[in-house]
Amino acid sequence: MRKIKITGCGNAIPEQKITFGDQTRYRLSEGKTLLDIADKAIENALEDAGIEISDIDCIIGGIATPLQAIPCNAALIHERIAKGMDIPAMDINTSCTSFVSALDMAAYMTDSGRYNNILIVSGDTASAALNPNQKESYELFSDAVSAFIVSRCEEECGIIYSAQRTWSEGAHDTEIRGGCGLMSVFKFNENNKEDYYFDMKGPKVLKLSAKKLPGFLDDCLKEAGVTMNDIDKVVPHQASKALKVIMPRLGISEDKYIDHVNEYGNMISAAIPFTLCNAIHDNEIVKGNTVMLLGTAAGLTSNVLILKY
Amino acid sequence: MRKIKITGCGNAIPEQKITFGDQTRYRLSEGKTLLDIADKAIENALEDAGIEISDIDCIIGGIATPLQAIPCNAALIHERIAKGMDIPAMDINTSCTSFVSALDMAAYMTDSGRYNNILIVSGDTASAALNPNQKESYELFSDAVSAFIVSRCEEECGIIYSAQRTWSEGAHDTEIRGGCGLMSVFKFNENNKEDYYFDMKGPKVLKLSAKKLPGFLDDCLKEAGVTMNDIDKVVPHQASKALKVIMPRLGISEDKYIDHVNEYGNMISAAIPFTLCNAIHDNEIVKGNTVMLLGTAAGLTSNVLILKY
Repeated sequence: MRKIKITGCGNAIPEQKITFGDQTRYRLSEGKTLLDIADKAIENALEDAGIEISDIDCIIGGIATPLQAIPCNAALIHERIAKGMDIPAMDINTSCTSFVSALDMAAYMTDSGRYNNILIVSGDTASAALNPNQKESYELFSDAVSAFIVSRCEEECGIIYSAQRTWSEGAHDTEIRGGCGLMSVFKFNENNKEDYYFDMKGPKVLKLSAKKLPGFLDDCLKEAGVTMNDIDKVVPHQASKALKVIMPRLGISEDKYIDHVNEYGNMISAAIPFTLCNAIHDNEIVKGNTVMLLGTAAGLTSNVLILKY
Repeated sequence: MRKIKITGCGNAIPEQKITFGDQTRYRLSEGKTLLDIADKAIENALEDAGIEISDIDCIIGGIATPLQAIPCNAALIHERIAKGMDIPAMDINTSCTSFVSALDMAAYMTDSGRYNNILIVSGDTASAALNPNQKESYELFSDAVSAFIVSRCEEECGIIYSAQRTWSEGAHDTEIRGGCGLMSVFKFNENNKEDYYFDMKGPKVLKLSAKKLPGFLDDCLKEAGVTMNDIDKVVPHQASKALKVIMPRLGISEDKYIDHVNEYGNMISAAIPFTLCNAIHDNEIVKGNTVMLLGTAAGLTSNVLILKY
């Protein structure tokens, strides 16, 4: 077990609440940025952990989308909460599962004794690139930030198992083609406008996930030497309403996983930690529980991480 | 020592060579993308290592700038070289020093036995955002890719010491303000055009670096228990011609560090690995050497990594 302890977490959502039928979503208001709600999430996490920013010795942005093309997201977060300090800031990105990858990497650093307290910040500005003409994605996503403090520990808690796979035949099923290195801002015009919006081919993602995930999860359980019965709670990426379709196919019963899609939508990289943090604060997950974080991400990537909380 | 072995490396530059006085730079031609030269760099690295892509069990994009806002860079590289395979793909980003951070993290994964062969790809499309009105940066950067294969090993080679610091008072001294989450493509207009270009405040970066680096490097050497005499070769980030000013201030003599700024310019995240790979192939660095990778990055971040090659 790579030892790491969740010592605190905090969430933040924008004030602007919108609904599509029975679905609730949160979007940043004009003039507000993700960094404004990141401040709040981090403040909540530090308070929850009972520590100060000066106790943090590494900041990881476990974020899917860039706030700026340069510098990295973690440096911009650093500026908001740790200006004048010399805490290292780094991004770890596997799209929607970036928090899982960040936690996975953080555990090497706490376990080895390199760092005592690492701040992981996850969250994306979905609203910056949603296409009003693509109803399926326009009505799905929310802006949000979730922040976790993870720490070096002596107790029996940490990562029991983790694995990732990427199947790039799905690389263009969830993407924003324009705006960065491959198709610069300066090539934008009225004819290629759609290339600069978020584009999701939902049925293709679902089909590829349904094909790849069962085998991947089986392999993970075998390698970890556990069965689904040993898992107390599964926190899946809140990808879409299709969660209800995918989870049974993976042998995960309704009472075992958390589904907040109706209440919050898909919060991209914040989805897993936001749901995990709520579950911890609601005592749905308690000390000693074995928790599985599980998700698909643009790529198509999937991460599985089994944690002794 | 976290054991990791460099088993192969390869570089690639675009065909388009331009000169500014005695300075040579390389830029992608219209219609070509960074992925086209990434293919070549990776092919070279695999050949150098004497392995196939099927021997790789993790792909890390140690890249400063996004090719697309979604998915991550490593997934897009995966698509070019490993489509149909399930190799995990992840980005690690500390801007210009991303390769150093990627190598640092990779060493946890080879040392722990998680992966046998990791492919690290670094490189950026500087030319996508250079501002023709900002001579200092317009004439400095090159597009390039460097690829490394790093492997699990039993020999006495690996990371002796590594550290990072971020001083976010410099967060806006090297940046691209527009195009991503904080200022979307859709806000672009003729009046704020400059915000979508790369913007470097050279003298400010130099001043902050000169203030922070000497103390940081001293701390690193002390913590690592070595002196500059123990270091055979320093591979610094090829930030600018100011390398000649900064290196002596750090107590690094001219014969100890490699300066390729005149020949290649600043290749952003490719700068350190590109220079390291050339030094390995030119036998400037040989087995058993103690090598220091050292650089500043947008953030302002600095990384120091001491490697037994």
